[in-house]
Amino acid sequence: MSFEITQEYIQKVQQLIAEQKNDTLLNLLEEVHYADVAEIVEELNPEEGLFLIKLLESDKTSDVIAELDEDDREKILKGLSSKEIAEEIEELDTDDATDIIAELSEEQKKEVISHIEDEEHAKDILDLLRYDEDTAGGLMAKELVKVNENWNILTCIKEMRKQAEEVTRVHSIYVVDDADVLIGRLSLKDLLTSSTKTAIKDVYIRKVDAVNVSDDTEDVAKVMQKYDLEAIPVVDDLGHLVGRITIDDIVDVIKEEAEKDYQMAAGISQDVEADDTIWELTKARLPWLILALFGGFISVSILGGFQGAMNNYPVLFFFTPLIAAMAGNVGVQSSAIIVQGLANDNLKGSYWNRLLKEVSQSLLNGFILAALLMSAGMFFLGFNLKVGITVAISLISVIIIASIIGTFVPIILDKRGIDPALATGPFITTSNDILGILIYFSIAKLILGF
Amino acid sequence: MSFEITQEYIQKVQQLIAEQKNDTLLNLLEEVHYADVAEIVEELNPEEGLFLIKLLESDKTSDVIAELDEDDREKILKGLSSKEIAEEIEELDTDDATDIIAELSEEQKKEVISHIEDEEHAKDILDLLRYDEDTAGGLMAKELVKVNENWNILTCIKEMRKQAEEVTRVHSIYVVDDADVLIGRLSLKDLLTSSTKTAIKDVYIRKVDAVNVSDDTEDVAKVMQKYDLEAIPVVDDLGHLVGRITIDDIVDVIKEEAEKDYQMAAGISQDVEADDTIWELTKARLPWLILALFGGFISVSILGGFQGAMNNYPVLFFFTPLIAAMAGNVGVQSSAIIVQGLANDNLKGSYWNRLLKEVSQSLLNGFILAALLMSAGMFFLGFNLKVGITVAISLISVIIIASIIGTFVPIILDKRGIDPALATGPFITTSNDILGILIYFSIAKLILGF
Repeated sequence: MSFEITQEYIQKVQQLIAEQKNDTLLNLLEEVHYADVAEIVEELNPEEGLFLIKLLESDKTSDVIAELDEDDREKILKGLSSKEIAEEIEELDTDDATDIIAELSEEQKKEVISHIEDEEHAKDILDLLRYDEDTAGGLMAKELVKVNENWNILTCIKEMRKQAEEVTRVHSIYVVDDADVLIGRLSLKDLLTSSTKTAIKDVYIRKVDAVNVSDDTEDVAKVMQKYDLEAIPVVDDLGHLVGRITIDDIVDVIKEEAEKDYQMAAGISQDVEADDTIWELTKARLPWLILALFGGFISVSILGGFQGAMNNYPVLFFFTPLIAAMAGNVGVQSSAIIVQGLANDNLKGSYWNRLLKEVSQSLLNGFILAALLMSAGMFFLGFNLKVGITVAISLISVIIIASIIGTFVPIILDKRGIDPALATGPFITTSNDILGILIYFSIAKLILGF
Repeated sequence: MSFEITQEYIQKVQQLIAEQKNDTLLNLLEEVHYADVAEIVEELNPEEGLFLIKLLESDKTSDVIAELDEDDREKILKGLSSKEIAEEIEELDTDDATDIIAELSEEQKKEVISHIEDEEHAKDILDLLRYDEDTAGGLMAKELVKVNENWNILTCIKEMRKQAEEVTRVHSIYVVDDADVLIGRLSLKDLLTSSTKTAIKDVYIRKVDAVNVSDDTEDVAKVMQKYDLEAIPVVDDLGHLVGRITIDDIVDVIKEEAEKDYQMAAGISQDVEADDTIWELTKARLPWLILALFGGFISVSILGGFQGAMNNYPVLFFFTPLIAAMAGNVGVQSSAIIVQGLANDNLKGSYWNRLLKEVSQSLLNGFILAALLMSAGMFFLGFNLKVGITVAISLISVIIIASIIGTFVPIILDKRGIDPALATGPFITTSNDILGILIYFSIAKLILGF
């Protein structure tokens, strides 16, 4: 069912823009969903995109603008006057409107808001701008359907008809008291199945999940997922109903969080995409590579310190990449399991249990890998037994230490309020590389006595 | 607002179970959400959990069972008879019911289904069992609200009242023709704001997004995210309305997909959690470690081949972990960006452009890192200019090659229908380690001529 935006389609749109065939363009795009129009605009150059935005009706273009990537949106908004931006903003729900206004300069913010004709809308946006974007307040919209406990079903339906004009989707009907404090919700089922004279007081559900405006968006996401909610009301510290968050915004939070963790594990420190500029991509990647480079210098110094072993046991130096790679891989595995466990709140049991579990796993993995290494090393590489034993013991030790570090570094970071995902990827591989090589040569020195 | 399950709370529950204080337990858990009861059950041992499940009402326990982890659910279901399981199944929506039944043995499946009293429900479940769990059919539920285009608003509300008894949440009202073919949807707004005598035919929206039963769940997730849908109808090849998928199921698909990619990048090949058994965790981790071990052997052989350089240029061998680490890190960064780009459908432009972009970035990163390496190397490690140039040139070359491999391996895998995430993590680090070392020593041989 998905609408396919082909290269030919884009070329057709570009040609129509070049020839200024406005009517043909309007016809072509009339039935196209705004999310698809946004994709088309992203494929065009900024002038062409702007042409389309100015051509189409603002009830569609407002959604298109809200849907665009931040970078693309910036380019389009540059071509619009404050008044034109305000017209787009009027069409949007308060949450999307606020997100767009928040991206403008302080000066333009004021100008755009002053051009919004619907005062209520402008007031709501100003209110929403106060909240940090990582909190429930920063995610919520003001559009919701609420009814007073003292109404009856008929009044309720009448009022809802009025409110529903403003609200695109009705998720829940929230029940408030005269002081606007959230006291419950009305199910659609009850609304449809109760007689029109029934008092709301008698049918509403007195239990309603809500989050506080200052709650962290990640916590809101957890609550909504756990309780399978499609919308959740937001209250202030006094319990007043101030907004609602819908699941589609939470889906974005969940995706962003997962992508951030993934990028951290891969050593990319900013939210970048494949089509960002070379400079943005480099900024996101270089810091981790510099970290790895300095880690590499430390390895170089450590190996330099053991140069004396080179005459009698050159083979030891051939094994350094292997030992370092094993330390890195084991560390990343352990830390990834912990980071996911922390994210999903399923790290149970004491630290001692966790340590015991990690060490048991490492011993199991270590012995299997050491056995493989010994047999392969003796048969194919033909090194002597003493060196074989040295490498095998080192491998097991390195695996155990790497897994303990991989386990506890994210736990410690998390305890200190630092994102544990920082501990995955280059950080853990680099530190484990260094430690692995140090342990390896120390054990070798102990056994072989060079 | 989230209910906090403390250790004390669990102990209290355990004590009440031990003392068989059923009434106190029922009182304690009456107001507790099923998702929280599921968490409590997961903290208890299987006997205690079973005791709770048997004690509570089946309209609650059915949801608790559906919410449990697969492992925990298996333990609980073992303690229930087929008839008892059927009673739980009756309370669930068809999608959750089908998921649970699909986990049973073939024999028990038949027994449980034969005990389901509601024949319609049993038929729906049997129908849903036919679909692959990775398709829209495997995700959908049969519960939905549909109205015939020939009804009027009043009939529609009456019929909806009937249907709404079965359906927990009304997402959309689907409009079908007499042949049960999906032809549109009715907005709640129109339902509330039209007069009761209006014919559905005159107010329904003739455009409705739908997916085919055989569509991939990931594609369904993309469509629902793109168009911000909270529910999507599912049709068969003839356009008949056969079910609906809601966003909460899609949230799970998105999370699982993200977690799978993350685990792949970390070298964990199965869906495991921190609280899985040591054996399960080892099975998920060991294959990648064995891959890394064999990669390590290849490095050992390569280094062995260059042993001749050891007398004159021992310092070259100290740099192998650094070169290998840089190759690994760069490769993982590049592949992660591509894997995310593929997942989000935002890889634009030709392969040549991508290649050019990757190489430009690598040159930029490479020169900065090489300059750092040269200066640090000369000042602190005091190695000679020729060796410094060798290492620097190698570093730049290795970074370029590693980034090209990291970019194109996932693209090629994706083209061949293999999950590109396979290419991240240990696979890319190991192959880049090997290649990096080979390039490094080849360049060194060329420049230093040992």
